[in-house]
Amino acid sequence: MKLQPISSKKVPRFAGICTFLRLPHVEDPTGLDIAILGVPFDGGQTTTVSGARFAPRAVREASSRIKMYNPSLGVNPYEKYNVADCGDVAINPLDLEASRQAITDGVGRAVDAGAVPLCIGGDHSVSLPILRGLARRHKPVGLVLFDAHSDTSDEYFGIRYGAGTPFRRATEEGLIDPKRTLQIGLRGSTYSADEHEYALAQGMELITMDDIMENGLKWVVERYGKLQGGPIYVSIDIDALDPAYALASAPNPGGLSARELIYLLRRLRGHQIVGADIVEVNAPYDSPTKMTACLAAQLLFDLVCLIDKG
Amino acid sequence: MKLQPISSKKVPRFAGICTFLRLPHVEDPTGLDIAILGVPFDGGQTTTVSGARFAPRAVREASSRIKMYNPSLGVNPYEKYNVADCGDVAINPLDLEASRQAITDGVGRAVDAGAVPLCIGGDHSVSLPILRGLARRHKPVGLVLFDAHSDTSDEYFGIRYGAGTPFRRATEEGLIDPKRTLQIGLRGSTYSADEHEYALAQGMELITMDDIMENGLKWVVERYGKLQGGPIYVSIDIDALDPAYALASAPNPGGLSARELIYLLRRLRGHQIVGADIVEVNAPYDSPTKMTACLAAQLLFDLVCLIDKG
Amino acid sequence: MKLQPISSKKVPRFAGICTFLRLPHVEDPTGLDIAILGVPFDGGQTTTVSGARFAPRAVREASSRIKMYNPSLGVNPYEKYNVADCGDVAINPLDLEASRQAITDGVGRAVDAGAVPLCIGGDHSVSLPILRGLARRHKPVGLVLFDAHSDTSDEYFGIRYGAGTPFRRATEEGLIDPKRTLQIGLRGSTYSADEHEYALAQGMELITMDDIMENGLKWVVERYGKLQGGPIYVSIDIDALDPAYALASAPNPGGLSARELIYLLRRLRGHQIVGADIVEVNAPYDSPTKMTACLAAQLLFDLVCLIDKG
Amino acid sequence: MKLQPISSKKVPRFAGICTFLRLPHVEDPTGLDIAILGVPFDGGQTTTVSGARFAPRAVREASSRIKMYNPSLGVNPYEKYNVADCGDVAINPLDLEASRQAITDGVGRAVDAGAVPLCIGGDHSVSLPILRGLARRHKPVGLVLFDAHSDTSDEYFGIRYGAGTPFRRATEEGLIDPKRTLQIGLRGSTYSADEHEYALAQGMELITMDDIMENGLKWVVERYGKLQGGPIYVSIDIDALDPAYALASAPNPGGLSARELIYLLRRLRGHQIVGADIVEVNAPYDSPTKMTACLAAQLLFDLVCLIDKG
Amino acid sequence: MKLQPISSKKVPRFAGICTFLRLPHVEDPTGLDIAILGVPFDGGQTTTVSGARFAPRAVREASSRIKMYNPSLGVNPYEKYNVADCGDVAINPLDLEASRQAITDGVGRAVDAGAVPLCIGGDHSVSLPILRGLARRHKPVGLVLFDAHSDTSDEYFGIRYGAGTPFRRATEEGLIDPKRTLQIGLRGSTYSADEHEYALAQGMELITMDDIMENGLKWVVERYGKLQGGPIYVSIDIDALDPAYALASAPNPGGLSARELIYLLRRLRGHQIVGADIVEVNAPYDSPTKMTACLAAQLLFDLVCLIDKG
Amino acid sequence: MKLQPISSKKVPRFAGICTFLRLPHVEDPTGLDIAILGVPFDGGQTTTVSGARFAPRAVREASSRIKMYNPSLGVNPYEKYNVADCGDVAINPLDLEASRQAITDGVGRAVDAGAVPLCIGGDHSVSLPILRGLARRHKPVGLVLFDAHSDTSDEYFGIRYGAGTPFRRATEEGLIDPKRTLQIGLRGSTYSADEHEYALAQGMELITMDDIMENGLKWVVERYGKLQGGPIYVSIDIDALDPAYALASAPNPGGLSARELIYLLRRLRGHQIVGADIVEVNAPYDSPTKMTACLAAQLLFDLVCLIDKG
Repeated sequence: MKLQPISSKKVPRFAGICTFLRLPHVEDPTGLDIAILGVPFDGGQTTTVSGARFAPRAVREASSRIKMYNPSLGVNPYEKYNVADCGDVAINPLDLEASRQAITDGVGRAVDAGAVPLCIGGDHSVSLPILRGLARRHKPVGLVLFDAHSDTSDEYFGIRYGAGTPFRRATEEGLIDPKRTLQIGLRGSTYSADEHEYALAQGMELITMDDIMENGLKWVVERYGKLQGGPIYVSIDIDALDPAYALASAPNPGGLSARELIYLLRRLRGHQIVGADIVEVNAPYDSPTKMTACLAAQLLFDLVCLIDKG
Repeated sequence: MKLQPISSKKVPRFAGICTFLRLPHVEDPTGLDIAILGVPFDGGQTTTVSGARFAPRAVREASSRIKMYNPSLGVNPYEKYNVADCGDVAINPLDLEASRQAITDGVGRAVDAGAVPLCIGGDHSVSLPILRGLARRHKPVGLVLFDAHSDTSDEYFGIRYGAGTPFRRATEEGLIDPKRTLQIGLRGSTYSADEHEYALAQGMELITMDDIMENGLKWVVERYGKLQGGPIYVSIDIDALDPAYALASAPNPGGLSARELIYLLRRLRGHQIVGADIVEVNAPYDSPTKMTACLAAQLLFDLVCLIDKG
Repeated sequence: MKLQPISSKKVPRFAGICTFLRLPHVEDPTGLDIAILGVPFDGGQTTTVSGARFAPRAVREASSRIKMYNPSLGVNPYEKYNVADCGDVAINPLDLEASRQAITDGVGRAVDAGAVPLCIGGDHSVSLPILRGLARRHKPVGLVLFDAHSDTSDEYFGIRYGAGTPFRRATEEGLIDPKRTLQIGLRGSTYSADEHEYALAQGMELITMDDIMENGLKWVVERYGKLQGGPIYVSIDIDALDPAYALASAPNPGGLSARELIYLLRRLRGHQIVGADIVEVNAPYDSPTKMTACLAAQLLFDLVCLIDKG
Repeated sequence: MKLQPISSKKVPRFAGICTFLRLPHVEDPTGLDIAILGVPFDGGQTTTVSGARFAPRAVREASSRIKMYNPSLGVNPYEKYNVADCGDVAINPLDLEASRQAITDGVGRAVDAGAVPLCIGGDHSVSLPILRGLARRHKPVGLVLFDAHSDTSDEYFGIRYGAGTPFRRATEEGLIDPKRTLQIGLRGSTYSADEHEYALAQGMELITMDDIMENGLKWVVERYGKLQGGPIYVSIDIDALDPAYALASAPNPGGLSARELIYLLRRLRGHQIVGADIVEVNAPYDSPTKMTACLAAQLLFDLVCLIDKG
Repeated sequence: MKLQPISSKKVPRFAGICTFLRLPHVEDPTGLDIAILGVPFDGGQTTTVSGARFAPRAVREASSRIKMYNPSLGVNPYEKYNVADCGDVAINPLDLEASRQAITDGVGRAVDAGAVPLCIGGDHSVSLPILRGLARRHKPVGLVLFDAHSDTSDEYFGIRYGAGTPFRRATEEGLIDPKRTLQIGLRGSTYSADEHEYALAQGMELITMDDIMENGLKWVVERYGKLQGGPIYVSIDIDALDPAYALASAPNPGGLSARELIYLLRRLRGHQIVGADIVEVNAPYDSPTKMTACLAAQLLFDLVCLIDKG
Repeated sequence: MKLQPISSKKVPRFAGICTFLRLPHVEDPTGLDIAILGVPFDGGQTTTVSGARFAPRAVREASSRIKMYNPSLGVNPYEKYNVADCGDVAINPLDLEASRQAITDGVGRAVDAGAVPLCIGGDHSVSLPILRGLARRHKPVGLVLFDAHSDTSDEYFGIRYGAGTPFRRATEEGLIDPKRTLQIGLRGSTYSADEHEYALAQGMELITMDDIMENGLKWVVERYGKLQGGPIYVSIDIDALDPAYALASAPNPGGLSARELIYLLRRLRGHQIVGADIVEVNAPYDSPTKMTACLAAQLLFDLVCLIDKG
């Protein structure tokens, strides 16, 4: 018998101590197939909102809404896999470098135990140390990034580590394969016409909202062919969504709807997902009903259901 | 001369005592064609939000935005029908069973007077006692349900009456005709693969958001043929909408847009609507501008305009 | 070595899974000195706010702010006692009577194990079933009630159980000793001049805000003599506070300040507190920083520190 | 039998159509002893908040919390007087001068009928036209003003009518008697050292928060002697309160607590109050529980209870 | 070298004094190509929200998110044009007529200097005085209006100037050419079937949301042919958007998505835009992340990028 | 003629570009008597709220409420001194050490120019680099700290720089004179009984809220004698206030009221204040009317008025 979540037909959704998806809290990842990890670090944020450090707690609470069966994917993941809440990575809010190391270590432990790490950030700078941890077993990985921005800048304020640079560093460090990288949802103003030059030069494919307006969702799914040839990592910056659907995102109008993002995520079925993150949920700004955290919880559950360890 | 609402070109929208659609408050439904009733009962809620009991008051206030003419339907309903605010049903927040009876009685009085009852809930458990009251004149009725969930569960926590069970009870009691029942907007996680088995076995048609993503709105309207053959009841759970469009809903991402729901509702023209409810507006969580209550007010006005007593 | 909370100098306050006061989650109360219980039940609320069912979860989160030592009382309670989070009582939101029984059972289990139950409600109707559970060991108990209202009404809407009646029922059932009962903070409008007649006739002492304005806090503490002669129960309705200090309370202006309530609570030292509740924290309405839940967490910690098992 | 409010032991506080204090809505003031009027006008506001036009509606809703008996004053006002909600004055939001005239007319009608007008503003500029309406029967009146500001400026931006000038105009027009005028709660920065010169020169007494910190509340009550010798008008600018107690006020830190304002208001008993207003409740900014509107409702009820028509 | 905004790679977006798009504050428009003006006037609002006067300040702050390059339009506007923040027009909140004159004067100064005025309102009544100022150089202009309403009413409450009448007055005064006028996004209830009669009779084309649901965005762009033949003015009432995308709008469900409005706006490229406004951002009601102000900032930047002075 | 703020009788408070106290923005401090600096750095926060980086912008906006004359102190500071907004210190959100250096440099420039630096943080860790900058001219200084905590911890998570350690470092570095240090407002739980040992051992005097409850405000002012003998620095952590008065503070119930803090601050008149900070205003959590930022603006103005350069 696998680990099971608490049923909301037995214990009301509003009752009890909150864990991700109402799953057991398990400190040691040994024996787990999927390890859900909180990464409460937002030392990389530089924009007009903050507070992604509070997201793991918020998503734990919001995820008490989620039940066991995913009718769209036809899966009850808990029949097949041991899934658990492995708590939060031991980040140090006063030491940015030590925090990055702690994230790599925490993810590495799950990966060493054979579990697929699904991480709730935190700001987007956490993707780099997560990928470093993942690299103990999978390197390089393909990448599908849902985001308003390419996050391949070289630096901000002279600093090479932040929420705008993770995928440049990950490329340089050989953690991701830019030839098997798709970036989806790009839009908004940039620093210059050639801001995306690096990403394109490495072979990444950038799909803007303008592209999606013109060509539609099915065309995007056709681009998924680029991901083939090995394991992939999924990174979801909640600002891929229009702020209407994710009130707690850094507001960048004109993004995906929740329906579209869920559609695109589920169409990754068949790819070998070996890790994922959901980042930039600025929990202090969420709606009264915590709609952004609820959406992140749904995306987390979809990710759990998409894992197929063969 | 029929009963008329106050014009917002004469009295500012922000002034005066609030009634539904700025209509007269009429205690006795005699002589009314359409009776708008508040049903401030939320004793059936079991999820991570609450407060649908406050919706009638919120919708009264929000509906001062609505004017007299509906250009999309080409109707000024007040030229043809007597419509009024009949106040709130006398529910008892400390006695769930007595509240259900009071709802049935209140709706029954309107129905006995020949008025079409349009109800502002309250949580979704109110649909059952409303349908019982409606049954004094119309039984069984066809049903079109806009909802994220089928609401045909047998029980929660061992209890047969709640926000997740009304349409199972209504089927068992012969209040609705499952063969003339459409459920639109279903999505999200469920308890098991066969959760919808009962509904399907009774002959209901379930239209999921996946279906709508695939087939479009016009395909949904084609399904309306199933409703033909008699009077219908319309039940709108505000969570049919994506939370983006209904911030005060219980957040279930990936739903209909406001535009889509309004489109689908208006395409019911030509069907004999004999009653309706709008439920699960959790008013304490509404946006600063009360966008959910404003949307409910618009839906209420569209329902008023769709009534055709022949 | 007693059970210890997590230190916020080691794990940031915003990280980790939330339990009351960051204490271990312990399902079985055996061996505990103090058992903290969530009571997520608000089926007794009848006023213009709701949502006390969400308070246990909110207080768990807010209490991660609290450290180990209480300098005002000169106590680190974890040096002397085993204190734990015993989770939430298994209430049934669709069955008011069954919920009351579940509360009595849950509290009874803690009491049977020799633990002092400290309960986070829930609305004020939960005090009655808590006192019933406590009665397995302590009956009758003295009562100190901090509240804007006496809560000794006989019924609301013809119903004898609700947030306005617990201490009338508790008196009738012999659970509390009205002669050793103090009610502090009363104010606001009432139904009639003789609303407090029952309480006074039973021998309770009612201290209004008018009294406190006139006589000061030290005079109130002098009244504590009335509590002597046996164990006491402490019930804190968060509306004892002015809404300024408890934004999530049912707003009743003119109440105690946080400072005053904390002062009065701490002056109970020396009395044998055998149980307590903090109720009516309507978490959905709390301030952005959750000030009401934070205050409830502080009051909970003060209660923990006041327990002296001799 | 006098007009009676709806009891919240019979109809829940959250149910029904909202009127002031749940009283009957009466269009014609004939036969009334006390007429409660909404004055939804805020065309005089020039500060960093706005929206006092929405206050009458908000106070109607909040006042469903108030019961019939006032224990602090020992009065059930509905035993002795006919009190009713006379709806909102017919202001014109696009015509400032016409709005002022409408207010004078609306108040005048109540005054002509022999009713004491109690007005819920609106911004403070409404006091002038109210006093003009009151002057049909009472002129000049004594004035007790609770306010952070003297509101005796000569002009703003070259305009003589606004929220900062009403009591200068009222003095010039002979509507109030400056020798029988007390201003209580003044504080904060001013334009110059001699800003209050006009008020003092006319004989008004200005009681600052500094005075109150130094001398206490009882000293303030002693100043009430100045009001003797005729009827008085009470004007309460909600910014007399510290913003902690009135979140929807224009924030001016260091003001009265709710308890202090209520205390001071009730000590007006024995004075002949012939009219009153409560202004500057900026309803869009109120707390989630609407604490400012609830406080205004309490102050309104206290005013009703203070009326003694001899 | 043209005037340049501050880069958010050098100065964090959250730091520094806020101007529109982080551009220099320039009092004198001489030498400017594009003058951005705040118009903090909302004396024309009559609906259930208010506070558009606070929008210029809010959009200044939100616009610190915008960078220099617009990839969708392929433009860095600061390479070609001098653009600056010219501060706020000196409106007088206590004098509606004087405010209108001040707006005309302020815009006129920019126009006289040869700058294209881009205005952040304010309510929609400001479009009339802006067009009057613009008329010093361009008269009549074509008009493209994004709005839920036609705003061609003759009066409200007997008054000819307000947020519902600007384009009727502008037509009467010959400021706009109704034959070259498109109105896009109309929906919701109206006062009567013939409310739009005037607009249609003058030759305006009205594109409703029903039209857009039926025909799609590209069909709308085809209608832009009507605008040809001279300079055009762009007026964006933020309620053209569904409230989901603009929480601070006056909520009118069923509108455009942010993506659609941005798409339609950018398709105006090639038309000679000589002025524009963005109005009805009711800043006090904006989301925690200020999503509406952020959207307005994006629209402002797109407008800047669309200006082509040949 | 000294630099003057914009009058809100000429330009409405809600209009124009925001600077501190509506003063001119001056980049170069040469010639200034008082330099107001924003310090948008919150990399030292470790608690359950965040976002102090947004405070300078929020206080700029809120301070448009403040006029020129301070009647409590009898001062118009702009008659005597040149006061200006010197913008924000150039912190680097991705480099904690570089940020501290930038703060020291920014403050040092003002100090070198002979100006008294008044700083709006930022979290409390900024006090250390401010004091380092101040040390170019004044070292050691006396300290009066208003705070719920002593902030003399040695480390958090092994790190010596953070919001809980500034005054330990400042003592070690000889920046402050612990013998001339008063800490006022301490309360709440601590890590151990000897947490305050270091502070006491150095000679600091700690005044808890318990002390203030017992002894009153005048007793506190008597303690000010300890500050004599040289220049002093004033540091105000907004959590010195009860959260009721500062909704955006890290909530710690039982603190000072706004009135009390203002009273105590003004009683520093006569001491030679050579620098000050106001920190820990977590702007994203502020009330709808921004009451905390408004309070900070008032405290800033009082500080300006307290400066006496002899």
